Order: sequence, then C-alpha cells, then structure tokens
Amino acid sequence: MSDQPSEFELIATYFKDLTSQQGVALGIGDDGALLNPSPDKQLVMASDTLVESVHFPADASGEQIASRALCVNLSDMAAMGATPKWFTLALTIPKHLANKQWLKGFSSGLADVAQEFDIALVGGDTTLGPLVVSITMIGEVPVGQALQRSGAVVGDTIYVTGTLADGAAALAMLKSTKNNEYVDSKRLLKRFYRPQPQIEAGIALRNIASACIDISDGLIADLGHICAASGVKANLVAEWLPINSQLLEVSATDCLNWALTGGDEYQLCFTLSANNKSIVDQWIAEGKLMATMIGQITQPHNSEELVTVDQQPAPDSNGGFDHFSN
Amino acid sequence: MSDQPSEFELIATYFKDLTSQQGVALGIGDDGALLNPSPDKQLVMASDTLVESVHFPADASGEQIASRALCVNLSDMAAMGATPKWFTLALTIPKHLANKQWLKGFSSGLADVAQEFDIALVGGDTTLGPLVVSITMIGEVPVGQALQRSGAVVGDTIYVTGTLADGAAALAMLKSTKNNEYVDSKRLLKRFYRPQPQIEAGIALRNIASACIDISDGLIADLGHICAASGVKANLVAEWLPINSQLLEVSATDCLNWALTGGDEYQLCFTLSANNKSIVDQWIAEGKLMATMIGQITQPHNSEELVTVDQQPAPDSNGGFDHFSN
Repeated sequence: MSDQPSEFELIATYFKDLTSQQGVALGIGDDGALLNPSPDKQLVMASDTLVESVHFPADASGEQIASRALCVNLSDMAAMGATPKWFTLALTIPKHLANKQWLKGFSSGLADVAQEFDIALVGGDTTLGPLVVSITMIGEVPVGQALQRSGAVVGDTIYVTGTLADGAAALAMLKSTKNNEYVDSKRLLKRFYRPQPQIEAGIALRNIASACIDISDGLIADLGHICAASGVKANLVAEWLPINSQLLEVSATDCLNWALTGGDEYQLCFTLSANNKSIVDQWIAEGKLMATMIGQITQPHNSEELVTVDQQPAPDSNGGFDHFSN
Repeated sequence: MSDQPSEFELIATYFKDLTSQQGVALGIGDDGALLNPSPDKQLVMASDTLVESVHFPADASGEQIASRALCVNLSDMAAMGATPKWFTLALTIPKHLANKQWLKGFSSGLADVAQEFDIALVGGDTTLGPLVVSITMIGEVPVGQALQRSGAVVGDTIYVTGTLADGAAALAMLKSTKNNEYVDSKRLLKRFYRPQPQIEAGIALRNIASACIDISDGLIADLGHICAASGVKANLVAEWLPINSQLLEVSATDCLNWALTGGDEYQLCFTLSANNKSIVDQWIAEGKLMATMIGQITQPHNSEELVTVDQQPAPDSNGGFDHFSN
C-alpha cells in the first residue's frame, strides 16, 4: 500500500471495524448500508459539519477532530431524546493528511466515541480537498416521545445539564497564545474535543421535558430557539447558572458572559411543568441526573428580547460562529 | 436581511419548502428531523460528497452543483433497489457565494430534482468554508429485497441500463477549451449536471437481479466490485457496449475507452440468472426498460484481472478520480 491510499483502501483499512451494531444488515462496502429499524420507533436524523479553522484549530489532531465531530452529532440526538444508532462520515482531507498516521488517529478517535455510545459507522466517503468533516446520524425514539423545541409553556421551569461556560472558556484558551496559564487546561481541552453528549439525560427526559435543545450556539441563543418555537419568552437568574468552581477562580469576570453566550457547550437546556419538576428534582437529589434550575418560562411580552437575564435585556450573543483563522 | 444571511436564515429562506414528503413528522428547524419509517421495510443509507475542482469545475453554477450532488446520491439508492425518501444537506460555501443569487440557484436545482423523485430535505447545516457539498440519503426497500453487489454467480448475464461513455465524454468536454466543437454538447452537459438516476430500473430489478451496482468509477472498476464481492470474474463483449450514436460519430476512437473506464455514468450494471434474463429481455422488448446485455459472469480463474474484454485484459481504469484543477 502506498502512503496515499485509495478511497477503497481507506474505508476498508481504517473504518471497517466500526460497523458492529444491532440493526446493521449490510455495512460499508456496497452502494449503501442496509439497516433494520426497530418496530414502533421513529427515526431522528441530523447532520453536522466541521470545517478546519472554523470549528477547530488547524493544528488539531485527527483523533481530536474525529471525536469532536462525532460528539457534536451525538449531542443533537441527545437533544431529541433519541438513542443514537448509525452514522455516515463524509471526510474531505487534503493530500498531506491522507497518510496512515493521520488516518489511524482519526479512526481511533472515531472508534473510541462510537464504542462508548454503541453506534455504527455504516457508510460515507473520503475525498481529497480542504479538510471538512461531515457526519449524518440516525437515532431512534419511541413513537411520539421525541423531545422538541416547541413544547414550552408559560410557568415551566428552565433547567440545564452539567455546567456552563466551559465551551467558551476552552475556545478562549485555544485561541490564546498563553495556553499554559490556564490551570484548568486539561479539563477544558477535553471539553472542547470530547464534549460529553447528554444521551442518557435526553432519554430520561422523554415524556418529562416540555421542550429541549442542546447548547451549541450559546444559552441565550438556544433558549431563544425554544422560545421562538414555543411562542413564549424566558427569564434566567444569573446567580443560578452552574459554573465550574475552578473556572470561576481563573477568570470570574468572563464566566457569566461565557455561560450566557458561549457556544459549544453541548449541555441540554430543557423546560419542565410543575408536575414533572418534582420528578426531576428528585432525580437530581438522588444523583441520577446532574442538572440545575436556571430560570422560568414567561408570558410573551412586547419587548424584543426572547430571553432576559434577571429581568434585564441579555448581553448580545456573539458565540455560535468562531473562527480560528487569523 | 443582509446579503450574507445567517445559517438560520439560510435554511429557513431557501430550503424550507423542500420538506414535504410522506413520513416526515418534523422537518427542518429542530435539532434533528423526526421520520416515520414504513412497516416491513429496511432502510438504505448512503452519503456522497462533491468538492469543487474535484467533482465539478469551479465555474459550475449553484443550480448545476445542487442537481448533480442530489442525482449522484439518488444513483446509490437506485443501485440498491431502494425508494429514496429523505436527505440531509451539509453545505460548506465560501463567503463570496453566500449571497441570495447563488443560494437561490442552488436551492432551485435541489428542488427540481427533489420534486421529480418525491424526496424531502429534512435537515443539514450550512457553514462558511471551501465549497463542499455532502448529501446523505435514506431510502426504503421491502425486507430482504435490496440489490447488492455480492449475488452474481457463474453463468449470469451482465446488463447495463442506458448508454455508456457519456459521463467521460462530458468530462472531456468540460475540461476542453474547445467546448463548442462538441456537437452533442447540450446533451452531454445535462448528462454531467443532471444524470438520470435509474430509480425505476432499480425498483423493477428487486428480486430479479442477482447483483447490481451503479457506474460511478467506470464499468470495469464497478463490475470489478461486483466480481470481488461475489467471488467471480466477468467477461465483456466490446461490440455489445451501448454507446450513443451521435457520440460515436464525434469521437469514435475514444468511445470504447470511455465506455469501459469512464466514471460518472450513473447507469446500473446488473447480473441476471437464465430464468430472470428472459423476464428482463421481455421488458426490454416491450420498451419498459432500456438496458443492454454486455457480457457474462465467468469462473474465477488464475489471471489477475477480475474483468476481461473479449477475453483480453481490460485497459487500465483511470477514471474515478478526476481533477478539474490544473
């Protein structure tokens, strides 16, 4: 095999072991994959694309790029309450990366995440070109139980899983020339390249949450999507926002802004009726779910903002589209 | 709206009308699409990526790029005998194309093909970056009836739909500086940007063809994939290969080579047992299917070639990866 393998060799060599999953009747190697959907389930389908210097720095490793791409897609499944099952990979790589070492790293990053979440790579293609990674994922959800953005009603309580601000802090660190000054750098790096998709939380929230979204554009922006889809508004309480204590110490001044507008969190923001709030509060108390109450769904009012913070207009969101290029 | 719309505006404005199709419970606008698979069907899933200057010339219009990308994906569905249903689009575009005019053209190219084949765009994303179009499609096929590459047996007859050599001729024309000399240019341009996916043929061949593939890498290469998957060899008869008569006149010397090794045909190559051959010959005689017998599946033998032409080694395939870049 030459150092620049053909597409067929690429798929056969590096990605063939990633196809074991229930429901795969025919994996990689034909014109399409043949899949057996489960009875009484609906399919959830989502795509996400990562572009070099836009969604990750040019010096990211193949392993880092692969795990980030897959986790970002898994987060969409979590937001819908879906059990992820199968994915395809469209990998466009420049010639200088089409070598064994890079591809081995990439496929091992993919394999790690795929194994953790028991999902199978069932197809895709590799082409030469600028570095772009596009993944399309299929998940399943019992009929009628998918979480959507559109179900929030006035009086619902707003929750978020995990902690906020890590995604934006990681981004700031990666863009900074003084990485080493970040005492929390190892954790933040992992948060960026291997965010933890909230699949279990999403599944637990089926039939419980009235609305749900994953935070990829920033809390204000994504909660705004829930408000727009549901025809309501929302108010957040700044001091309730969960932020990692180490991070607060390092750069407390930035933390609130990061928590409100920073993208790339991949936590779930969801809403609960009064009845279901008590169920979820019980889960939280028992340590079954890590989530925090952060605000309330309110009446539509005349002001422009969909989301206020402590009843005040929220700071401008400028997350959501970050360039690593200069 | 500014001339460079945000991602949300992009999807809402240009692609929202493309979601009407049976089985779409929730289309664009949430974290994923929610789809209702049909009972007693298997899913077929396939992805294809088109990169500027690799799979289409840099001066191709948005409309041309969109229709080509969708047709290439539909061809994979045809090769599996699947009924195409839903697709996602991952569109990476450079800043200078993220304007109303280009996006309108792109979405109208997509809409034309989507309407013809009754398929729905159910999600995807748009990102700024180098021009890369990646489509993932889901189709359905009755359980156990998908066409595969692996079923050809010794004695089967080999057929191809439509005519060969058009894809390579179109490519040669597009790369030539003397486009106008091609008397057949209008037809060839359409063959390149709007190849006709053989969906109906694929569906008709369920339970009939022993193996099937679409010709994207070239006849020799793709028939070779059938041979490899089936553990057999194949012999083609050169004078049986169907070639458009106008094309033969223009450049007869190139035609055989184009027919054997040219990619981008998007015709189906399939194999038939003696019993099913008589059924298909009847369809052809009645004008229900346009297809031509081109050779025979043979015993595995010791020579290296999977595919021979008139019992001789086939010319080297150098199709399959064509650069438009200089």
